Amino acid sequence: MDYEELRVGQSAEFRKTVTETDVVLYAGITGDLNPAHVDEVAAAASRFGGRIAHGMLSAGFISAVLGTRLPGPGTIYLEQTLRFTAPVRIGDTVTARVTVSELLDRRRVRLATTVLTHAGQTVVEGEALVMVPRPPVEAA
Amino acid sequence: MDYEELRVGQSAEFRKTVTETDVVLYAGITGDLNPAHVDEVAAAASRFGGRIAHGMLSAGFISAVLGTRLPGPGTIYLEQTLRFTAPVRIGDTVTARVTVSELLDRRRVRLATTVLTHAGQTVVEGEALVMVPRPPVEAA
Amino acid sequence: MDYEELRVGQSAEFRKTVTETDVVLYAGITGDLNPAHVDEVAAAASRFGGRIAHGMLSAGFISAVLGTRLPGPGTIYLEQTLRFTAPVRIGDTVTARVTVSELLDRRRVRLATTVLTHAGQTVVEGEALVMVPRPPVEAA
Amino acid sequence: MDYEELRVGQSAEFRKTVTETDVVLYAGITGDLNPAHVDEVAAAASRFGGRIAHGMLSAGFISAVLGTRLPGPGTIYLEQTLRFTAPVRIGDTVTARVTVSELLDRRRVRLATTVLTHAGQTVVEGEALVMVPRPPVEAA
Repeated sequence: MDYEELRVGQSAEFRKTVTETDVVLYAGITGDLNPAHVDEVAAAASRFGGRIAHGMLSAGFISAVLGTRLPGPGTIYLEQTLRFTAPVRIGDTVTARVTVSELLDRRRVRLATTVLTHAGQTVVEGEALVMVPRPPVEAA
Repeated sequence: MDYEELRVGQSAEFRKTVTETDVVLYAGITGDLNPAHVDEVAAAASRFGGRIAHGMLSAGFISAVLGTRLPGPGTIYLEQTLRFTAPVRIGDTVTARVTVSELLDRRRVRLATTVLTHAGQTVVEGEALVMVPRPPVEAA
Repeated sequence: MDYEELRVGQSAEFRKTVTETDVVLYAGITGDLNPAHVDEVAAAASRFGGRIAHGMLSAGFISAVLGTRLPGPGTIYLEQTLRFTAPVRIGDTVTARVTVSELLDRRRVRLATTVLTHAGQTVVEGEALVMVPRPPVEAA
Repeated sequence: MDYEELRVGQSAEFRKTVTETDVVLYAGITGDLNPAHVDEVAAAASRFGGRIAHGMLSAGFISAVLGTRLPGPGTIYLEQTLRFTAPVRIGDTVTARVTVSELLDRRRVRLATTVLTHAGQTVVEGEALVMVPRPPVEAA
């Protein structure tokens, strides 16, 4: 979406089931082998009672909404704050939702960002700051 | 590392080459198919001149250091702020570094977090807040 | 998009660079280890002069447009014809384009489907037949 | 198999369990994030009652038989028709079977192609047209 079309209150979301495969691949590509994510024995003995997804993986779903839906393709990520408020378990279906909260100068946009489980529990919340570049001028 | 052993100024890092495979897999598991990451033609025409890695993928390397080195296994992620200051290109080798900046009550720790390219350019910076649970009591 | 909103001539597309990772993963999940895709020595000696992507992988990009853009989420795939007219090499950026060609009874839609390289060469062409279910009735 | 050895009625097959991992990876490399495949909540509310594999993923098993068994390595895919007649659920074991139906000029072969579940339900059916190149002349 072009910067000029953005309005405070506009919202978009993406929903996905977080699978064991997602957690395994995420651990592999980031190197985050925290036992909470890859060691079922340690995880079962922890306060969570089993393996949980990486909090930063859920943050990736926010990036997905920003980069594919609102503002959409071409969006440049400037800043993000994240509070991890509850764990995501393998098999949970989560929704990442972003809502335009403020239109700033230099084509920058602030958005409220939340990730929720299907049961309605907030698992990540925070704010994003992005920049929406001018669309490329097509060659004549 | 146990909470009682942590000291302000302690530091740890993790270095990794960001491959095309990492970007492909990350796009798939998060759903972030922003053309900047998966469409070389669009990316080549952008300000970056080619495909770049997802900023949030680099943030995952911070999570990796926190969850595997400092404070290490068992660490619970509470908060993270992120400023994406420069792009990471496919093939770049980046270092995520975390440094203890403040010891707080309730076993919480604040850390400065940075991701740098091998050329020394900061690509992500911010702060983490984590909690270090008491180690489990071993069964007799 | 709901069936009632569809019009002949509507079009949507998805563009992606076909990476070596895509070909490796596709070979692994389908079991299609044809040397043309996984054996550079054999592929270099073939008419193609090097490894090429699986034709059916490119067909997947058509499925992606149908299932995420036009008609979009919920679409049920009924039929597809495919003619593989030219190879896709690793590193090629391809565009899958679907265009509504006929609105049929029982909420069915026929679409022309094409995959093109960035250089404009058609690599796959054919027709899709899909069904667009009624949107679920929300509980009161 | 060389073209001269092919006979009408010859048949070959490949059987594989379709895992959640296959579906996750397929969604990522094709960009097909249709909720039917990646969102268990939406999929459970659909006519299928849960996530199903991409139809085009099952078509890939046909390509696997053609490219590795009959006619085998080196086969060039020219055309394929596909009818998706029933869904494949995650965990289903499916068999892709191809049977030579017609030997044509210019080293081309037509084959009947079917994918069945282990319970015997046809999930994909159609026809393939392939070309079998002359084997490369070995260097003396």
